[in-house]
Amino acid sequence: MVRNIAVETLSETPLNRQKLELAERKCIGHPDSLADGIAEAVSQALSRAYLDECGAVLHHNTDQGEIVAGESLPRFGGGVVTRPMYVLLTGRATKTFDGVTVPTDAIALEAARNYLSETLEYLNMNKDVIVDCRMGAGSSDLRDVFRACEEKHLPHANDTSFGVGHAPFSDLETVILAVSEHLDGVYRPKNPIIGTDIKIMGLRQEEEMNLTLCVPMIDRFCADMNDYIEAVTKVGEEVHRVASGITDRKVTVDINTGDNYEKEDAIFLTVTGTSAEMGDDGSVGRGNRANGLITPHRPMSMEATSGKNPINHIGKIYNLLSTEMAQQCAQEIDGIEDLYIRLLSQIGRPIDQPLIAGAQFVAAKGADEAAISRGIEEIIDAGLENITSITERVIRGEMKTF
Amino acid sequence: MVRNIAVETLSETPLNRQKLELAERKCIGHPDSLADGIAEAVSQALSRAYLDECGAVLHHNTDQGEIVAGESLPRFGGGVVTRPMYVLLTGRATKTFDGVTVPTDAIALEAARNYLSETLEYLNMNKDVIVDCRMGAGSSDLRDVFRACEEKHLPHANDTSFGVGHAPFSDLETVILAVSEHLDGVYRPKNPIIGTDIKIMGLRQEEEMNLTLCVPMIDRFCADMNDYIEAVTKVGEEVHRVASGITDRKVTVDINTGDNYEKEDAIFLTVTGTSAEMGDDGSVGRGNRANGLITPHRPMSMEATSGKNPINHIGKIYNLLSTEMAQQCAQEIDGIEDLYIRLLSQIGRPIDQPLIAGAQFVAAKGADEAAISRGIEEIIDAGLENITSITERVIRGEMKTF
Amino acid sequence: MVRNIAVETLSETPLNRQKLELAERKCIGHPDSLADGIAEAVSQALSRAYLDECGAVLHHNTDQGEIVAGESLPRFGGGVVTRPMYVLLTGRATKTFDGVTVPTDAIALEAARNYLSETLEYLNMNKDVIVDCRMGAGSSDLRDVFRACEEKHLPHANDTSFGVGHAPFSDLETVILAVSEHLDGVYRPKNPIIGTDIKIMGLRQEEEMNLTLCVPMIDRFCADMNDYIEAVTKVGEEVHRVASGITDRKVTVDINTGDNYEKEDAIFLTVTGTSAEMGDDGSVGRGNRANGLITPHRPMSMEATSGKNPINHIGKIYNLLSTEMAQQCAQEIDGIEDLYIRLLSQIGRPIDQPLIAGAQFVAAKGADEAAISRGIEEIIDAGLENITSITERVIRGEMKTF
Amino acid sequence: MVRNIAVETLSETPLNRQKLELAERKCIGHPDSLADGIAEAVSQALSRAYLDECGAVLHHNTDQGEIVAGESLPRFGGGVVTRPMYVLLTGRATKTFDGVTVPTDAIALEAARNYLSETLEYLNMNKDVIVDCRMGAGSSDLRDVFRACEEKHLPHANDTSFGVGHAPFSDLETVILAVSEHLDGVYRPKNPIIGTDIKIMGLRQEEEMNLTLCVPMIDRFCADMNDYIEAVTKVGEEVHRVASGITDRKVTVDINTGDNYEKEDAIFLTVTGTSAEMGDDGSVGRGNRANGLITPHRPMSMEATSGKNPINHIGKIYNLLSTEMAQQCAQEIDGIEDLYIRLLSQIGRPIDQPLIAGAQFVAAKGADEAAISRGIEEIIDAGLENITSITERVIRGEMKTF
Repeated sequence: MVRNIAVETLSETPLNRQKLELAERKCIGHPDSLADGIAEAVSQALSRAYLDECGAVLHHNTDQGEIVAGESLPRFGGGVVTRPMYVLLTGRATKTFDGVTVPTDAIALEAARNYLSETLEYLNMNKDVIVDCRMGAGSSDLRDVFRACEEKHLPHANDTSFGVGHAPFSDLETVILAVSEHLDGVYRPKNPIIGTDIKIMGLRQEEEMNLTLCVPMIDRFCADMNDYIEAVTKVGEEVHRVASGITDRKVTVDINTGDNYEKEDAIFLTVTGTSAEMGDDGSVGRGNRANGLITPHRPMSMEATSGKNPINHIGKIYNLLSTEMAQQCAQEIDGIEDLYIRLLSQIGRPIDQPLIAGAQFVAAKGADEAAISRGIEEIIDAGLENITSITERVIRGEMKTF
Repeated sequence: MVRNIAVETLSETPLNRQKLELAERKCIGHPDSLADGIAEAVSQALSRAYLDECGAVLHHNTDQGEIVAGESLPRFGGGVVTRPMYVLLTGRATKTFDGVTVPTDAIALEAARNYLSETLEYLNMNKDVIVDCRMGAGSSDLRDVFRACEEKHLPHANDTSFGVGHAPFSDLETVILAVSEHLDGVYRPKNPIIGTDIKIMGLRQEEEMNLTLCVPMIDRFCADMNDYIEAVTKVGEEVHRVASGITDRKVTVDINTGDNYEKEDAIFLTVTGTSAEMGDDGSVGRGNRANGLITPHRPMSMEATSGKNPINHIGKIYNLLSTEMAQQCAQEIDGIEDLYIRLLSQIGRPIDQPLIAGAQFVAAKGADEAAISRGIEEIIDAGLENITSITERVIRGEMKTF
Repeated sequence: MVRNIAVETLSETPLNRQKLELAERKCIGHPDSLADGIAEAVSQALSRAYLDECGAVLHHNTDQGEIVAGESLPRFGGGVVTRPMYVLLTGRATKTFDGVTVPTDAIALEAARNYLSETLEYLNMNKDVIVDCRMGAGSSDLRDVFRACEEKHLPHANDTSFGVGHAPFSDLETVILAVSEHLDGVYRPKNPIIGTDIKIMGLRQEEEMNLTLCVPMIDRFCADMNDYIEAVTKVGEEVHRVASGITDRKVTVDINTGDNYEKEDAIFLTVTGTSAEMGDDGSVGRGNRANGLITPHRPMSMEATSGKNPINHIGKIYNLLSTEMAQQCAQEIDGIEDLYIRLLSQIGRPIDQPLIAGAQFVAAKGADEAAISRGIEEIIDAGLENITSITERVIRGEMKTF
Repeated sequence: MVRNIAVETLSETPLNRQKLELAERKCIGHPDSLADGIAEAVSQALSRAYLDECGAVLHHNTDQGEIVAGESLPRFGGGVVTRPMYVLLTGRATKTFDGVTVPTDAIALEAARNYLSETLEYLNMNKDVIVDCRMGAGSSDLRDVFRACEEKHLPHANDTSFGVGHAPFSDLETVILAVSEHLDGVYRPKNPIIGTDIKIMGLRQEEEMNLTLCVPMIDRFCADMNDYIEAVTKVGEEVHRVASGITDRKVTVDINTGDNYEKEDAIFLTVTGTSAEMGDDGSVGRGNRANGLITPHRPMSMEATSGKNPINHIGKIYNLLSTEMAQQCAQEIDGIEDLYIRLLSQIGRPIDQPLIAGAQFVAAKGADEAAISRGIEEIIDAGLENITSITERVIRGEMKTF
């Protein structure tokens, strides 16, 4: 069956050359990111358990859940969490199938606790967090849809929904992602004082780029206010260095602009490196989109990608696939300045047959628009043909969802 | 102090004339909308209580919370909810101030229960729902920011964040909002069979518009499958009629496309009119944006508007204000085909002084772009000047947040 | 099959004539009594629903559950509950049987809320209390035992356990029960100022009886400290009057001995009439025994009677039956000064065939001990023969369990 | 001030020589015992933290709490817990004192998790259990009572309540305690197949003693039904051997009488060694009294000893003290066949001055009753004089409370 793919050109200025651009990333320890990470860890653990026990991934969606902040008393030299964070796992998962009982609640609990323990090194898993679980068993009609797909056909869309992706990344987006990766992968291992709940807000006005970061400092590595100020200064310089190495634009960096150095309790000092310890709740799907960014100048989907089942949930699969296809187009096809791919499902259709796959691109001056269109269409068609590889890579933990 | 307002033109095709457009609305009984509505009801109730007891709105944010779906057995003629829905109220609120204790938990509980009771007529408040509360008391630094604003200055931004609004609505957006309003305000009062958890997914391809609706039917008003089919047909015809009266484009309507009329449990039959009774969780901030829509072709903010404090929370105030100002511009200034307004705060700045207020517009052919620019700038400046009116109207319940 | 009944005489001074005696009653609004009352209301509601839907009472035990106290600010003239009480329903109940799904969670929730609403007139059910539910589905082996009993045999004991009852009541016990009944049935209707969470501690030393009562006053009926003191005085006089009308012994009465009239917050003033509003948790099975009393000079069972299933749970049936049989013996047989009946089950035996039914009695001087023995044995045998009437009366709500 | 101590003789047959006697012990892994153990561990941890941080034990009572059973699938060779147990910590604890914040919730959580982990070796703390916390902050008047005691006076009774203790242990009681100790201390280390949730029900009829034990077997140590049966047989023989070594009476032993060897799911097979994994809830204060036994032929207090604050909570201190004093009397004074000590407090009195300390004893034939009386009175007087040593030993974890 021929797929319904529509490619059109956009006659607009590519975002990277517009006067104003905003973008944001909530790094791995942000309460919303924690919620996303837990949701996805639970879904992956369930998927693997289903494969082991039943030979198929059964219906589940764990794309919900809430982190209720605790209370803490950070202090120079090391403070305490006084009221544990509370993490509620919800969603639903098939508990029995063909006589086999899958211990879904226990699996979810373990996956969530392990994820927290890996992500928040200074969180005492015995004292500082309560993980609770109220997962349900799912509505029967959704299970019906799923059952169909086991009979060797492609899964059918669980919902009428859509996914959106774009490429290439603008300068600002590239810088934000690179700074995030650098802080997590390179800087923190040598400077454990910086916590993981970093928020990077980027603003570009013409050729000037400002990065405003909130960077929690971990109190046990911070003997006094001088240490704190030094850490703030140092991370600011590092961010500036990394960002300036990527873009030719002028970069300014602000760290923890709300601080008041006169008061120990008016700086961003934490016990565990996340504000979830003392005041900021988190929810699945409230933070980064599937590409790791929040981009208010770009089309976005409101669907939470994390935690949805990777078999037939459009809100997950189409967001991941459209993002990946857009990036592939931008890499392989010359002359694309901006590209948006949207995949719209209709409940009950096979997932490789969206109701419509629409692409819109801004061509570089002088580029062969017809050739670009053909190239995009081919990549989309091939991407849909091969859509189940998304499922497989999600289960293997190879795809980022936030 | 002069405000930093930047207006620029966009040389792009207005969305309404592009080939492809998607938009969506989750109506009032959708689990995500319920979560939003509860969050906002709680914030309004707290704000009023703070004003009564302390003469000022104290710090609070209740823009979190989770609805964990129950389980139900809908049956023709009337079924039952077998496992109650579970609603968790979280967020934080100042509990004591200047010797006065405000019963925040009790207020939140009452506001949430009242909201549910008003919104879901067929939900038995004694049997079908559990409302739980784990609200905290807030982090001290956020309270500091707030204290400053009591000294007759304007409140200072609680965060580095932004709000986005657009106008005018496209044909598709206008139709979706009108259908939603008609079903809630006109059709349901005469046809109580339709539940409130309606989802409207709109797709426009050039001059053809398709509306795909999920409409839950309430089992007590539905004696058998014939009743159900009749109700589906009838609501479809009504939606078609209303939509066709608004747009000149060709409209097609699909209702409950996932139904299988062979099986009573494979149709969208419910006891209470919301899928939260049996399988779909809901979260604050996962559904409609402040303008009531999800618009993946438009810039959007990820911030939940509902439940945030209306005093200094940028994620609420700037989303509401930018939406309102954009609509005012579109109404009062000739020649605007598309307009986007973005307000970016920096933590600690007075809320009437955003770091930048940026507007981008697409002018109608032949329009006076300079005049439009001036007009937009004036409206934005006046809007910011008068920003605290947003707060007041929010507290009086006069502004929709989802 | 002949029942194993052993009756023996005790050569001890009847409690009523010993020098020292303690006894206690936690009245209906005491947190532990509330927990008992809720547990029993839930069991009764489930039993009735099972009968309606399945024609038999299915396995359940709801003899657990916890009331977590709230926080309140009682004030002369009327205060508020600031943090709602939290009631957790636990235990287990069969959810499906022979294709029928019984909405056990919804039934439990409704029963608990209704019970609270009837028992605590001044509790705002929308603000002051959260009722949560985490009931399970029961272990399969217990369900097996139960299934057996549907086949027209008598139910088999669910456990190796026992029940104990005694009669007649001593003077002190009689007085305590009468005072409780009078306050609830006669005094409060005319004096709504007294709350329901009354604790009556009785101490008899030879011929003097002291009653120490904790009586919560309801703040809306209490304009100032004078009102409070007057109410304390008045209820004390009433208790003295009632008690003195029953016993010839000298009675002294103390009310709220911990009060300090200098401080509004150091008296027993409440918003709702129960200390569960502000500090005292309650649990099922921690308060009165099945006869309504705590009697540390008497044999007692630790089993919670409330909430257990009335079909085969020995901890319920044998406590109720032994109490009832002892009272019947004391009424119908002359010469019994003290009588203790203990019924010991063995898991799996029919409930009318205890492993042993033991009775011990103290005979009045000159009484015919052999005749008493025979009389007791006959009543026990008949009581066991007719044991299922306990079940029926429990389900109809005709038996007090605390 | 002279203490009000009243000693009297009882002219009754000592329990050990009466015809019928029942007694019971719920061993350490029984759900009620787990609840007790957790409650006491939490109180001890809080007490130590208060001493460290504030130099005094602050007001707290954690003598509440609930264990909601999970669901499990035990299987020969090793099964799984499918739904985690849920442990709710409640009660209240002072959170701030004189400017110092004590992280009471975090301390409670850690103490509970550590206790579970030590007590249930095969419970996976990451998968099989959720520990939640809803502790409150206490009512102000109770805190007032406590504050008084910091001023070098003895603490004042928190309530009008009583404690009861008895000695010496009867044959049956001695045997039950010895069997429990032997199984936990000697037998299990060599035979890890037996779980900790053992219930020992003892029945003595004249000179015959029957012990009925429920002994959970741990599935990973049990390859098949033969292993199970062998383990049941072996533990039965061991219990018989130990019991027979203590009493001259004839002993019979029954293990797991409800088993049906035809069905794998109708035996007492568990994953973790406690029935809390699959169906049996537990509560504080529902199991053993402070002496480790449930003794329906003996006076008992309904007060939970575990978890109460060891400073001024009569329900704890008087139960522990009366039990200890009774045992001391029985050891040091010749001629006591049965002794009951009851301590009655009145709210607000110093704890070393009970309203009445009453003792009743049965003297051996020919014993010097006056000397016994004097001896008992001296021991009681000294015990009350030295009452704060109870507090100290409780905090050091040297006193068993269940």
